[in-house]
Amino acid sequence: MTDALPDDPQLLAETAARQMHGRDRASHHLGIALEEVRPGYARMTMEIVEWMLQGHDMCHGGMLFALADTAMAFASNSHNVPHVALNANVDFLRPALLGDRLVAEASEGNRTRRTGMYDVSVTNQRGERVCHFRGRTYGSGGSVIRPA
Amino acid sequence: MTDALPDDPQLLAETAARQMHGRDRASHHLGIALEEVRPGYARMTMEIVEWMLQGHDMCHGGMLFALADTAMAFASNSHNVPHVALNANVDFLRPALLGDRLVAEASEGNRTRRTGMYDVSVTNQRGERVCHFRGRTYGSGGSVIRPA
Amino acid sequence: MTDALPDDPQLLAETAARQMHGRDRASHHLGIALEEVRPGYARMTMEIVEWMLQGHDMCHGGMLFALADTAMAFASNSHNVPHVALNANVDFLRPALLGDRLVAEASEGNRTRRTGMYDVSVTNQRGERVCHFRGRTYGSGGSVIRPA
Amino acid sequence: MTDALPDDPQLLAETAARQMHGRDRASHHLGIALEEVRPGYARMTMEIVEWMLQGHDMCHGGMLFALADTAMAFASNSHNVPHVALNANVDFLRPALLGDRLVAEASEGNRTRRTGMYDVSVTNQRGERVCHFRGRTYGSGGSVIRPA
Repeated sequence: MTDALPDDPQLLAETAARQMHGRDRASHHLGIALEEVRPGYARMTMEIVEWMLQGHDMCHGGMLFALADTAMAFASNSHNVPHVALNANVDFLRPALLGDRLVAEASEGNRTRRTGMYDVSVTNQRGERVCHFRGRTYGSGGSVIRPA
Repeated sequence: MTDALPDDPQLLAETAARQMHGRDRASHHLGIALEEVRPGYARMTMEIVEWMLQGHDMCHGGMLFALADTAMAFASNSHNVPHVALNANVDFLRPALLGDRLVAEASEGNRTRRTGMYDVSVTNQRGERVCHFRGRTYGSGGSVIRPA
Repeated sequence: MTDALPDDPQLLAETAARQMHGRDRASHHLGIALEEVRPGYARMTMEIVEWMLQGHDMCHGGMLFALADTAMAFASNSHNVPHVALNANVDFLRPALLGDRLVAEASEGNRTRRTGMYDVSVTNQRGERVCHFRGRTYGSGGSVIRPA
Repeated sequence: MTDALPDDPQLLAETAARQMHGRDRASHHLGIALEEVRPGYARMTMEIVEWMLQGHDMCHGGMLFALADTAMAFASNSHNVPHVALNANVDFLRPALLGDRLVAEASEGNRTRRTGMYDVSVTNQRGERVCHFRGRTYGSGGSVIRPA
Protein backbone atom coordinates (compact mmCIF):
# COMPACT_ATOMS: atom_id res chain seq x y z
CA MET A 1 0.00 0.00 0.00
CA THR A 2 1.26 3.42 -0.93
CA ASP A 3 1.23 6.56 1.20
CA ALA A 4 1.23 8.84 -1.81
CA LEU A 5 -1.01 11.90 -1.43
CA PRO A 6 -3.73 12.53 -3.99
CA ASP A 7 -2.85 15.02 -6.72
CA ASP A 8 -6.38 16.26 -7.18
CA PRO A 9 -7.15 19.21 -4.81
CA GLN A 10 -10.72 17.98 -4.29
CA LEU A 11 -9.61 14.46 -3.45
CA LEU A 12 -6.94 15.88 -1.16
CA ALA A 13 -9.56 17.97 0.65
CA GLU A 14 -11.87 14.98 1.09
CA THR A 15 -9.12 12.70 2.34
CA ALA A 16 -7.81 15.29 4.82
CA ALA A 17 -11.34 16.00 6.07
CA ARG A 18 -12.20 12.33 6.51
CA GLN A 19 -9.06 11.70 8.55
CA MET A 20 -9.55 14.84 10.65
CA HIS A 21 -13.17 14.00 11.34
CA GLY A 22 -12.19 10.51 12.41
CA ARG A 23 -9.81 11.92 15.03
CA ASP A 24 -12.02 14.79 16.24
CA ARG A 25 -13.75 13.66 19.44
CA ALA A 26 -15.24 17.09 20.20
CA SER A 27 -17.09 17.27 16.87
CA HIS A 28 -18.49 13.79 17.42
CA HIS A 29 -19.65 14.65 20.92
CA LEU A 30 -21.43 17.72 19.58
CA GLY A 31 -23.02 15.70 16.78
CA ILE A 32 -21.38 17.86 14.13
CA ALA A 33 -21.65 16.28 10.68
CA LEU A 34 -19.54 17.13 7.66
CA GLU A 35 -21.80 17.75 4.69
CA GLU A 36 -19.37 19.01 2.10
CA VAL A 37 -15.74 19.95 1.82
CA ARG A 38 -13.89 21.59 -1.07
CA PRO A 39 -10.53 23.36 -1.20
CA GLY A 40 -11.03 26.35 1.12
CA TYR A 41 -14.62 25.49 1.95
CA ALA A 42 -16.57 23.35 4.41
CA ARG A 43 -20.24 22.96 5.31
CA MET A 44 -21.17 21.29 8.60
CA THR A 45 -24.40 20.77 10.54
CA MET A 46 -25.37 20.47 14.20
CA GLU A 47 -28.69 20.01 15.99
CA ILE A 48 -29.32 21.81 19.26
CA VAL A 49 -29.96 19.24 21.99
CA GLU A 50 -31.01 19.66 25.60
CA TRP A 51 -27.55 19.75 27.17
CA MET A 52 -26.47 22.65 24.94
CA LEU A 53 -28.91 25.10 26.57
CA GLN A 54 -27.81 27.77 29.04
CA GLY A 55 -29.76 29.45 31.83
CA HIS A 56 -31.95 31.56 29.51
CA ASP A 57 -33.08 28.42 27.56
CA MET A 58 -31.03 29.42 24.52
CA CYS A 59 -28.18 27.46 23.00
CA HIS A 60 -24.95 28.31 24.81
CA GLY A 61 -22.77 30.67 22.78
CA GLY A 62 -19.88 28.27 23.19
CA MET A 63 -21.68 25.59 21.20
CA LEU A 64 -22.43 28.01 18.35
CA PHE A 65 -18.79 29.04 18.38
CA ALA A 66 -17.73 25.40 18.40
CA LEU A 67 -19.77 24.66 15.29
CA ALA A 68 -18.36 27.67 13.43
CA ASP A 69 -14.82 26.98 14.62
CA THR A 70 -15.09 23.38 13.43
CA ALA A 71 -16.20 24.52 9.99
CA MET A 72 -13.22 26.86 9.83
CA ALA A 73 -10.90 24.03 10.89
CA PHE A 74 -12.11 21.80 8.08
CA ALA A 75 -11.92 24.57 5.49
CA SER A 76 -8.46 25.68 6.61
CA ASN A 77 -7.07 22.12 6.66
CA SER A 78 -8.56 21.31 3.27
CA HIS A 79 -5.27 22.03 1.49
CA ASN A 80 -3.65 19.32 3.67
CA VAL A 81 -1.53 21.81 5.62
CA PRO A 82 -2.38 21.73 9.34
CA HIS A 83 -3.73 25.12 10.43
CA VAL A 84 -4.73 26.20 13.91
CA ALA A 85 -6.84 29.19 14.90
CA LEU A 86 -4.96 32.32 15.97
CA ASN A 87 -8.09 34.20 16.87
CA ALA A 88 -11.73 34.58 16.00
CA ASN A 89 -14.64 36.86 16.56
CA VAL A 90 -18.28 36.05 16.55
CA ASP A 91 -21.41 38.19 16.36
CA PHE A 92 -24.57 36.69 17.80
CA LEU A 93 -27.62 37.72 15.80
CA ARG A 94 -30.48 35.62 17.10
CA PRO A 95 -30.85 32.78 19.61
CA ALA A 96 -30.70 29.14 18.60
CA LEU A 97 -33.30 27.05 20.40
CA LEU A 98 -33.85 23.42 21.31
CA GLY A 99 -34.29 21.31 18.19
CA ASP A 100 -32.88 23.89 15.78
CA ARG A 101 -30.82 22.37 12.98
CA LEU A 102 -27.91 24.66 12.21
CA VAL A 103 -25.75 24.83 9.11
CA ALA A 104 -22.30 26.41 9.17
CA GLU A 105 -20.63 27.39 5.93
CA ALA A 106 -16.96 28.32 6.05
CA SER A 107 -15.28 30.01 3.10
CA GLU A 108 -11.73 31.18 2.66
CA GLY A 109 -11.49 34.95 2.49
CA ASN A 110 -7.75 35.04 2.16
CA ARG A 111 -4.76 32.76 2.22
CA THR A 112 -1.06 33.49 2.30
CA ARG A 113 1.80 31.06 2.73
CA ARG A 114 1.37 31.08 6.49
CA THR A 115 -2.03 32.50 7.43
CA GLY A 116 -5.63 32.12 6.36
CA MET A 117 -8.82 34.09 7.00
CA TYR A 118 -12.21 32.42 7.05
CA ASP A 119 -15.76 33.68 7.23
CA VAL A 120 -18.34 31.34 8.66
CA SER A 121 -22.06 31.95 8.46
CA VAL A 122 -24.36 29.94 10.73
CA THR A 123 -28.03 29.71 9.79
CA ASN A 124 -31.00 27.79 11.16
CA GLN A 125 -33.51 25.52 9.38
CA ARG A 126 -35.54 28.58 8.33
CA GLY A 127 -32.50 30.14 6.66
CA GLU A 128 -32.22 32.82 9.34
CA ARG A 129 -28.73 33.94 10.34
CA VAL A 130 -27.84 32.87 13.87
CA CYS A 131 -24.28 34.15 13.99
CA HIS A 132 -21.35 35.31 11.91
CA PHE A 133 -17.85 34.18 12.70
CA ARG A 134 -14.52 35.27 11.31
CA GLY A 135 -11.23 33.70 12.20
CA ARG A 136 -7.57 33.81 11.32
CA THR A 137 -5.47 30.67 11.13
CA TYR A 138 -1.78 29.91 11.18
CA GLY A 139 -0.19 27.07 9.25
CA SER A 140 2.29 24.99 11.18
CA GLY A 141 3.60 23.01 8.23
CA GLY A 142 3.45 19.25 7.86
CA SER A 143 0.57 17.18 6.57
CA VAL A 144 -2.99 16.63 7.82
CA ILE A 145 -3.16 13.24 6.12
CA ARG A 146 -1.28 10.53 8.00
CA PRO A 147 0.08 7.48 6.25
CA ALA A 148 -2.19 4.44 6.42
CA MET B 1 -42.81 33.52 51.38
CA THR B 2 -41.46 36.77 50.07
CA ASP B 3 -40.00 37.52 46.64
CA ALA B 4 -38.00 40.47 47.88
CA LEU B 5 -34.56 40.80 46.26
CA PRO B 6 -31.50 41.19 48.45
CA ASP B 7 -30.31 44.77 48.96
CA ASP B 8 -26.65 43.89 49.28
CA PRO B 9 -24.89 43.83 45.85
CA GLN B 10 -22.74 40.86 46.86
CA LEU B 11 -25.73 38.85 48.07
CA LEU B 12 -27.60 39.80 44.88
CA ALA B 13 -24.67 38.58 42.76
CA GLU B 14 -24.50 35.27 44.62
CA THR B 15 -28.24 34.66 44.44
CA ALA B 16 -28.38 35.48 40.72
CA ALA B 17 -25.37 33.25 40.03
CA ARG B 18 -26.76 30.33 42.02
CA GLN B 19 -30.07 30.44 40.16
CA MET B 20 -28.38 30.84 36.75
CA HIS B 21 -26.04 27.96 37.42
CA GLY B 22 -28.94 25.75 38.45
CA ARG B 23 -30.64 26.35 35.09
CA ASP B 24 -27.52 26.17 32.89
CA ARG B 25 -27.35 22.67 31.39
CA ALA B 26 -24.42 23.47 29.09
CA SER B 27 -22.15 24.53 31.95
CA HIS B 28 -23.00 21.35 33.85
CA HIS B 29 -22.30 19.19 30.83
CA LEU B 30 -18.89 20.84 30.44
CA GLY B 31 -18.15 20.42 34.13
CA ILE B 32 -17.78 24.17 34.61
CA ALA B 33 -17.74 25.09 38.29
CA LEU B 34 -18.39 28.54 39.74
CA GLU B 35 -15.61 29.42 42.16
CA GLU B 36 -16.40 33.01 42.97
CA VAL B 37 -18.80 35.72 41.92
CA ARG B 38 -18.83 39.41 42.84
CA PRO B 39 -20.60 42.36 41.24
CA GLY B 40 -19.04 42.53 37.77
CA TYR B 41 -16.72 39.58 38.34
CA ALA B 42 -16.79 35.78 38.06
CA ARG B 43 -14.19 33.02 38.30
CA MET B 44 -14.98 29.58 36.88
CA THR B 45 -13.03 26.38 36.32
CA MET B 46 -13.13 23.52 33.81
CA GLU B 47 -11.02 20.39 33.34
CA ILE B 48 -10.18 19.21 29.85
CA VAL B 49 -11.60 15.72 29.35
CA GLU B 50 -11.26 13.27 26.47
CA TRP B 51 -14.35 14.28 24.50
CA MET B 52 -13.19 17.92 24.33
CA LEU B 53 -10.21 17.11 22.09
CA GLN B 54 -10.15 17.86 18.38
CA GLY B 55 -8.21 16.17 15.62
CA HIS B 56 -4.80 17.59 16.60
CA ASP B 57 -5.20 16.25 20.22
CA MET B 58 -5.70 19.74 21.59
CA CYS B 59 -8.79 21.01 23.37
CA HIS B 60 -11.33 22.22 20.80
CA GLY B 61 -11.40 26.01 20.59
CA GLY B 62 -15.16 25.92 21.10
CA MET B 63 -14.75 24.48 24.57
CA LEU B 64 -12.26 27.20 25.54
CA PHE B 65 -14.66 29.78 24.18
CA ALA B 66 -17.52 28.15 26.12
CA LEU B 67 -15.63 28.43 29.40
CA ALA B 68 -14.78 32.10 28.81
CA ASP B 69 -18.28 32.91 27.57
CA THR B 70 -19.76 31.30 30.67
CA ALA B 71 -17.55 33.40 32.93
CA MET B 72 -18.70 36.53 31.06
CA ALA B 73 -22.32 35.46 31.44
CA PHE B 74 -22.00 35.11 35.19
CA ALA B 75 -20.14 38.39 35.56
CA SER B 76 -22.58 40.29 33.34
CA ASN B 77 -25.65 38.87 35.11
CA SER B 78 -24.20 39.58 38.56
CA HIS B 79 -26.16 42.83 38.85
CA ASN B 80 -29.37 40.81 38.41
CA VAL B 81 -30.14 42.31 35.01
CA PRO B 82 -30.23 39.61 32.30
CA HIS B 83 -27.52 40.27 29.74
CA VAL B 84 -26.80 38.32 26.57
CA ALA B 85 -23.65 38.39 24.45
CA LEU B 86 -23.70 40.66 21.40
CA ASN B 87 -20.31 39.55 20.22
CA ALA B 88 -16.96 38.33 21.40
CA ASN B 89 -13.45 37.80 20.21
CA VAL B 90 -10.92 35.33 21.41
CA ASP B 91 -7.16 35.03 20.92
CA PHE B 92 -5.69 31.58 21.29
CA LEU B 93 -2.23 31.72 22.87
CA ARG B 94 -1.30 28.12 23.65
CA PRO B 95 -3.03 24.76 23.42
CA ALA B 96 -4.94 23.24 26.33
CA LEU B 97 -4.33 19.52 26.67
CA LEU B 98 -6.03 16.51 28.21
CA GLY B 99 -6.17 16.83 31.98
CA ASP B 100 -5.46 20.56 32.08
CA ARG B 101 -7.40 22.42 34.73
CA LEU B 102 -8.38 25.82 33.42
CA VAL B 103 -9.43 28.91 35.32
CA ALA B 104 -11.40 31.71 33.66
CA GLU B 105 -11.58 35.11 35.30
CA ALA B 106 -14.10 37.60 33.92
CA SER B 107 -13.98 41.25 34.91
CA GLU B 108 -16.16 44.15 33.86
CA GLY B 109 -14.28 46.63 31.74
CA ASN B 110 -17.21 48.92 31.19
CA ARG B 111 -20.92 49.14 31.89
CA THR B 112 -23.53 51.54 30.67
CA ARG B 113 -27.29 51.38 31.17
CA ARG B 114 -27.65 48.92 28.29
CA THR B 115 -24.31 47.39 27.43
CA GLY B 116 -21.35 45.83 29.19
CA MET B 117 -17.82 44.90 28.17
CA TYR B 118 -15.96 42.03 29.77
CA ASP B 119 -12.40 40.77 29.60
CA VAL B 120 -11.85 37.12 30.37
CA SER B 121 -8.45 35.58 30.91
CA VAL B 122 -8.12 31.79 30.76
CA THR B 123 -5.05 30.23 32.36
CA ASN B 124 -3.96 26.66 33.02
CA GLN B 125 -2.78 24.99 36.23
CA ARG B 126 0.74 26.36 35.67
CA GLY B 127 -0.56 29.92 35.46
CA GLU B 128 0.14 30.10 31.72
CA ARG B 129 -2.30 32.06 29.58
CA VAL B 130 -4.31 29.82 27.26
CA CYS B 131 -6.55 32.45 25.71
CA HIS B 132 -7.88 35.95 26.09
CA PHE B 133 -11.53 36.70 25.45
CA ARG B 134 -13.37 39.99 25.22
CA GLY B 135 -17.09 40.31 24.81
CA ARG B 136 -19.83 42.88 24.69
CA THR B 137 -23.22 42.24 26.27
CA TYR B 138 -26.66 43.76 25.94
CA GLY B 139 -29.12 44.04 28.80
CA SER B 140 -32.66 43.01 28.00
CA GLY B 141 -34.22 44.26 31.22
CA GLY B 142 -36.07 42.17 33.78
CA SER B 143 -34.56 40.11 36.57
CA VAL B 144 -32.21 37.12 36.61
CA ILE B 145 -33.58 35.99 39.97
CA ARG B 146 -36.95 34.30 39.69
CA PRO B 147 -39.41 34.27 42.59
CA ALA B 148 -39.29 31.17 44.76
CA MET C 1 -40.02 75.95 4.86
CA THR C 2 -41.11 72.71 6.42
CA ASP C 3 -39.04 70.39 8.61
CA ALA C 4 -41.02 67.31 7.62
CA LEU C 5 -38.88 64.23 7.04
CA PRO C 6 -39.07 62.43 3.71
CA ASP C 7 -41.35 59.37 3.64
CA ASP C 8 -39.34 57.52 1.05
CA PRO C 9 -36.57 55.38 2.63
CA GLN C 10 -34.17 56.15 -0.21
CA LEU C 11 -34.76 59.89 0.04
CA LEU C 12 -34.41 59.65 3.82
CA ALA C 13 -31.07 57.86 3.42
CA GLU C 14 -29.77 60.45 0.97
CA THR C 15 -30.86 63.40 3.09
CA ALA C 16 -29.34 61.93 6.26
CA ALA C 17 -26.09 61.12 4.44
CA ARG C 18 -25.81 64.57 2.90
CA GLN C 19 -26.25 66.28 6.26
CA MET C 20 -23.85 63.90 8.01
CA HIS C 21 -21.23 64.36 5.35
CA GLY C 22 -21.53 68.12 5.63
CA ARG C 23 -20.75 67.96 9.35
CA ASP C 24 -18.01 65.31 9.20
CA ARG C 25 -14.66 67.10 9.30
CA ALA C 26 -12.62 63.90 9.60
CA SER C 27 -14.02 62.43 6.38
CA HIS C 28 -13.28 65.65 4.54
CA HIS C 29 -9.74 65.76 5.85
CA LEU C 30 -9.18 62.19 4.67
CA GLY C 31 -10.69 62.98 1.26
CA ILE C 32 -13.41 60.37 1.72
CA ALA C 33 -16.15 60.75 -0.87
CA LEU C 34 -19.65 59.32 -0.66
CA GLU C 35 -20.43 57.47 -3.87
CA GLU C 36 -23.74 55.86 -3.04
CA VAL C 37 -26.06 55.43 -0.10
CA ARG C 38 -29.14 53.26 0.23
CA PRO C 39 -31.05 52.10 3.31
CA GLY C 40 -28.48 49.94 5.14
CA TYR C 41 -25.77 50.44 2.54
CA ALA C 42 -23.01 52.93 1.75
CA ARG C 43 -20.12 53.02 -0.71
CA MET C 44 -17.25 55.45 -0.13
CA THR C 45 -13.86 56.07 -1.69
CA MET C 46 -10.48 57.35 -0.52
CA GLU C 47 -7.13 57.84 -2.21
CA ILE C 48 -3.92 57.08 -0.35
CA VAL C 49 -1.83 60.22 -0.11
CA GLU C 50 1.65 60.81 1.23
CA TRP C 51 0.76 61.71 4.81
CA MET C 52 -1.17 58.45 5.27
CA LEU C 53 1.97 56.32 5.06
CA GLN C 54 3.61 54.75 8.09
CA GLY C 55 7.20 53.73 8.65
CA HIS C 56 7.11 50.70 6.31
CA ASP C 57 5.80 52.88 3.40
CA MET C 58 2.36 51.29 3.57
CA CYS C 59 -0.88 53.09 4.34
CA HIS C 60 -1.32 53.32 8.11
CA GLY C 61 -3.88 50.82 9.38
CA GLY C 62 -5.72 53.62 11.13
CA MET C 63 -6.55 55.26 7.81
CA LEU C 64 -7.91 52.00 6.38
CA PHE C 65 -9.95 51.58 9.53
CA ALA C 66 -11.17 55.17 9.24
CA LEU C 67 -12.44 54.59 5.70
CA ALA C 68 -14.27 51.40 6.69
CA ASP C 69 -15.64 52.95 9.86
CA THR C 70 -16.94 55.92 7.89
CA ALA C 71 -18.73 53.61 5.47
CA MET C 72 -20.33 51.82 8.43
CA ALA C 73 -21.38 55.15 9.92
CA PHE C 74 -23.14 56.20 6.75
CA ALA C 75 -24.84 52.82 6.32
CA SER C 76 -25.94 52.65 9.94
CA ASN C 77 -27.30 56.20 9.96
CA SER C 78 -29.13 55.70 6.66
CA HIS C 79 -32.43 54.98 8.46
CA ASN C 80 -32.16 58.43 10.08
CA VAL C 81 -31.55 57.02 13.57
CA PRO C 82 -28.17 58.10 14.93
CA HIS C 83 -25.98 55.05 15.54
CA VAL C 84 -22.51 54.99 17.04
CA ALA C 85 -19.98 52.15 16.87
CA LEU C 86 -19.82 49.86 19.89
CA ASN C 87 -16.90 47.90 18.52
CA ALA C 88 -15.28 46.71 15.35
CA ASN C 89 -12.72 44.30 14.12
CA VAL C 90 -10.59 44.52 11.05
CA ASP C 91 -8.49 41.97 9.17
CA PHE C 92 -5.66 43.35 7.08
CA LEU C 93 -5.18 41.30 3.93
CA ARG C 94 -2.72 43.24 1.79
CA PRO C 95 -1.01 46.62 2.04
CA ALA C 96 -2.45 49.76 0.49
CA LEU C 97 0.20 51.90 -1.18
CA LEU C 98 0.67 55.50 -2.21
CA GLY C 99 -1.78 56.45 -4.94
CA ASP C 100 -4.10 53.50 -4.40
CA ARG C 101 -7.76 54.37 -4.81
CA LEU C 102 -9.79 52.41 -2.29
CA VAL C 103 -13.49 51.62 -2.29
CA ALA C 104 -15.33 50.67 0.90
CA GLU C 105 -18.71 48.99 0.67
CA ALA C 106 -20.72 48.70 3.88
CA SER C 107 -23.77 46.47 4.07
CA GLU C 108 -26.13 45.78 6.92
CA GLY C 109 -25.83 42.22 8.17
CA ASN C 110 -28.36 42.58 10.89
CA ARG C 111 -30.53 45.22 12.55
CA THR C 112 -32.64 45.10 15.66
CA ARG C 113 -34.45 47.94 17.39
CA ARG C 114 -31.25 49.01 19.12
CA THR C 115 -28.22 47.48 17.44
CA GLY C 116 -26.88 46.96 13.95
CA MET C 117 -24.12 44.83 12.46
CA TYR C 118 -22.23 45.90 9.35
CA ASP C 119 -19.72 44.22 7.09
CA VAL C 120 -17.38 46.48 5.18
CA SER C 121 -15.16 45.29 2.39
CA VAL C 122 -12.30 47.53 1.26
CA THR C 123 -10.81 46.89 -2.17
CA ASN C 124 -8.23 48.68 -4.29
CA GLN C 125 -8.40 49.89 -7.90
CA ARG C 126 -7.51 46.39 -9.13
CA GLY C 127 -10.41 44.85 -7.21
CA GLU C 128 -8.08 43.20 -4.69
CA ARG C 129 -9.30 42.99 -1.10
CA VAL C 130 -7.26 45.23 1.20
CA CYS C 131 -9.16 44.59 4.41
CA HIS C 132 -12.40 43.30 5.87
CA PHE C 133 -14.14 45.15 8.67
CA ARG C 134 -17.08 44.18 10.79
CA GLY C 135 -18.66 46.43 13.36
CA ARG C 136 -21.58 46.61 15.74
CA THR C 137 -23.50 49.82 16.29
CA TYR C 138 -25.87 51.11 18.95
CA GLY C 139 -28.78 53.41 18.23
CA SER C 140 -29.13 56.33 20.57
CA GLY C 141 -32.52 57.47 19.37
CA GLY C 142 -33.31 60.87 17.88
CA SER C 143 -32.84 61.96 14.29
CA VAL C 144 -29.78 62.34 12.08
CA ILE C 145 -31.51 64.97 9.98
CA ARG C 146 -31.63 68.38 11.65
CA PRO C 147 -34.33 70.93 10.80
CA ALA C 148 -33.33 73.50 8.23
CA MET D 1 30.80 54.45 11.28
CA THR D 2 29.56 51.05 12.31
CA ASP D 3 26.20 49.50 11.57
CA ALA D 4 26.37 47.20 14.57
CA LEU D 5 23.08 46.84 16.42
CA PRO D 6 22.96 47.58 20.13
CA ASP D 7 23.16 44.54 22.42
CA ASP D 8 21.05 46.04 25.14
CA PRO D 9 17.31 45.31 24.58
CA GLN D 10 16.31 48.74 25.90
CA LEU D 11 18.75 50.54 23.63
CA LEU D 12 17.60 48.37 20.72
CA ALA D 13 13.98 49.31 21.43
CA GLU D 14 14.80 53.01 21.58
CA THR D 15 16.85 52.96 18.41
CA ALA D 16 14.21 51.04 16.48
CA ALA D 17 11.47 53.37 17.74
CA ARG D 18 13.39 56.52 16.88
CA GLN D 19 14.02 55.33 13.32
CA MET D 20 10.41 54.17 12.86
CA HIS D 21 9.04 57.44 14.17
CA GLY D 22 11.27 59.36 11.82
CA ARG D 23 9.80 57.51 8.82
CA ASP D 24 6.16 57.49 9.96
CA ARG D 25 4.35 60.31 8.19
CA ALA D 26 0.90 59.28 9.42
CA SER D 27 1.88 59.53 13.08
CA HIS D 28 3.35 62.96 12.51
CA HIS D 29 0.27 64.16 10.71
CA LEU D 30 -1.87 63.00 13.62
CA GLY D 31 0.46 64.66 16.12
CA ILE D 32 1.19 61.34 17.82
CA ALA D 33 4.16 61.62 20.19
CA LEU D 34 6.21 58.74 21.54
CA GLU D 35 6.49 59.08 25.31
CA GLU D 36 8.16 55.83 26.24
CA VAL D 37 9.26 52.60 24.62
CA ARG D 38 10.56 49.44 26.25
CA PRO D 39 10.87 45.90 24.89
CA GLY D 40 7.25 44.90 24.23
CA TYR D 41 5.82 48.19 25.42
CA ALA D 42 5.05 51.65 24.05
CA ARG D 43 3.21 54.69 25.35
CA MET D 44 2.06 57.37 22.92
CA THR D 45 -0.08 60.50 23.12
CA MET D 46 -2.40 62.40 20.78
CA GLU D 47 -4.54 65.50 21.17
CA ILE D 48 -7.95 65.68 19.52
CA VAL D 49 -8.02 68.56 17.07
CA GLU D 50 -10.82 70.02 15.01
CA TRP D 51 -10.29 67.99 11.82
CA MET D 52 -10.56 64.71 13.73
CA LEU D 53 -14.26 65.23 14.55
CA GLN D 54 -17.03 63.39 12.76
CA GLY D 55 -20.64 64.38 12.21
CA HIS D 56 -21.74 63.87 15.83
CA ASP D 57 -18.92 66.18 17.11
CA MET D 58 -16.99 63.26 18.56
CA CYS D 59 -13.51 62.16 17.54
CA HIS D 60 -13.75 59.85 14.53
CA GLY D 61 -13.28 56.22 15.52
CA GLY D 62 -10.59 55.89 12.87
CA MET D 63 -8.37 58.39 14.67
CA LEU D 64 -8.74 56.52 17.98
CA PHE D 65 -7.90 53.31 16.15
CA ALA D 66 -4.91 55.01 14.51
CA LEU D 67 -3.50 56.04 17.89
CA ALA D 68 -3.92 52.54 19.35
CA ASP D 69 -2.58 50.88 16.21
CA THR D 70 0.48 53.12 16.27
CA ALA D 71 1.19 52.19 19.88
CA MET D 72 0.94 48.50 18.92
CA ALA D 73 3.29 49.07 15.99
CA PHE D 74 5.95 50.61 18.23
CA ALA D 75 5.59 47.91 20.89
CA SER D 76 5.68 45.10 18.34
CA ASN D 77 8.72 46.51 16.52
CA SER D 78 10.60 47.14 19.77
CA HIS D 79 12.54 43.88 19.43
CA ASN D 80 13.86 45.16 16.08
CA VAL D 81 11.93 42.59 14.05
CA PRO D 82 9.47 44.26 11.66
CA HIS D 83 5.91 43.25 12.52
CA VAL D 84 2.73 44.20 10.72
CA ALA D 85 -0.83 43.96 12.00
CA LEU D 86 -2.80 40.88 10.96
CA ASN D 87 -5.99 42.05 12.60
CA ALA D 88 -7.31 44.08 15.46
CA ASN D 89 -10.49 44.73 17.34
CA VAL D 90 -11.50 47.81 19.21
CA ASP D 91 -14.23 48.50 21.74
CA PHE D 92 -15.38 52.08 22.02
CA LEU D 93 -16.26 52.96 25.61
CA ARG D 94 -16.80 56.72 25.67
CA PRO D 95 -16.44 59.53 23.16
CA ALA D 96 -13.26 61.55 22.84
CA LEU D 97 -13.95 65.25 22.37
CA LEU D 98 -12.20 68.32 20.99
CA GLY D 99 -9.14 69.14 23.07
CA ASP D 100 -8.93 65.77 24.82
CA ARG D 101 -5.38 64.57 25.36
CA LEU D 102 -5.27 60.82 24.93
CA VAL D 103 -2.68 58.35 26.11
CA ALA D 104 -2.31 54.91 24.51
CA GLU D 105 -0.40 52.20 26.34
CA ALA D 106 0.48 49.07 24.40
CA SER D 107 1.73 45.97 26.17
CA GLU D 108 2.72 42.61 24.77
CA GLY D 109 0.30 39.89 25.83
CA ASN D 110 2.03 37.14 23.96
CA ARG D 111 4.89 36.60 21.56
CA THR D 112 5.93 33.57 19.58
CA ARG D 113 8.61 33.31 16.91
CA ARG D 114 6.22 34.65 14.29
CA THR D 115 3.25 36.33 15.92
CA GLY D 116 2.57 38.77 18.70
CA MET D 117 -0.55 39.86 20.60
CA TYR D 118 -0.88 43.34 22.02
CA ASP D 119 -3.40 45.02 24.29
CA VAL D 120 -3.72 48.76 24.01
CA SER D 121 -5.64 50.88 26.46
CA VAL D 122 -6.55 54.45 25.48
CA THR D 123 -7.45 56.87 28.25
CA ASN D 124 -8.18 60.59 28.37
CA GLN D 125 -6.67 63.34 30.56
CA ARG D 126 -9.06 62.43 33.37
CA GLY D 127 -7.88 58.81 33.35
CA GLU D 128 -11.17 57.58 31.87
CA ARG D 129 -10.98 54.71 29.40
CA VAL D 130 -11.89 55.79 25.87
CA CYS D 131 -11.32 52.50 24.09
CA HIS D 132 -9.66 49.12 24.34
CA PHE D 133 -7.79 47.67 21.41
CA ARG D 134 -6.32 44.23 20.88
CA GLY D 135 -4.31 43.24 17.86
CA ARG D 136 -2.30 40.39 16.45
CA THR D 137 0.91 40.96 14.53
CA TYR D 138 3.01 38.92 12.16
CA GLY D 139 6.76 39.17 11.93
CA SER D 140 8.18 39.34 8.45
CA GLY D 141 11.82 38.94 9.41
CA GLY D 142 14.57 41.44 8.75
CA SER D 143 15.51 44.45 10.83
CA VAL D 144 13.64 47.64 11.76
CA ILE D 145 16.88 49.53 12.20
CA ARG D 146 18.49 50.56 8.93
CA PRO D 147 22.21 51.17 8.64
CA ALA D 148 23.25 54.77 8.96
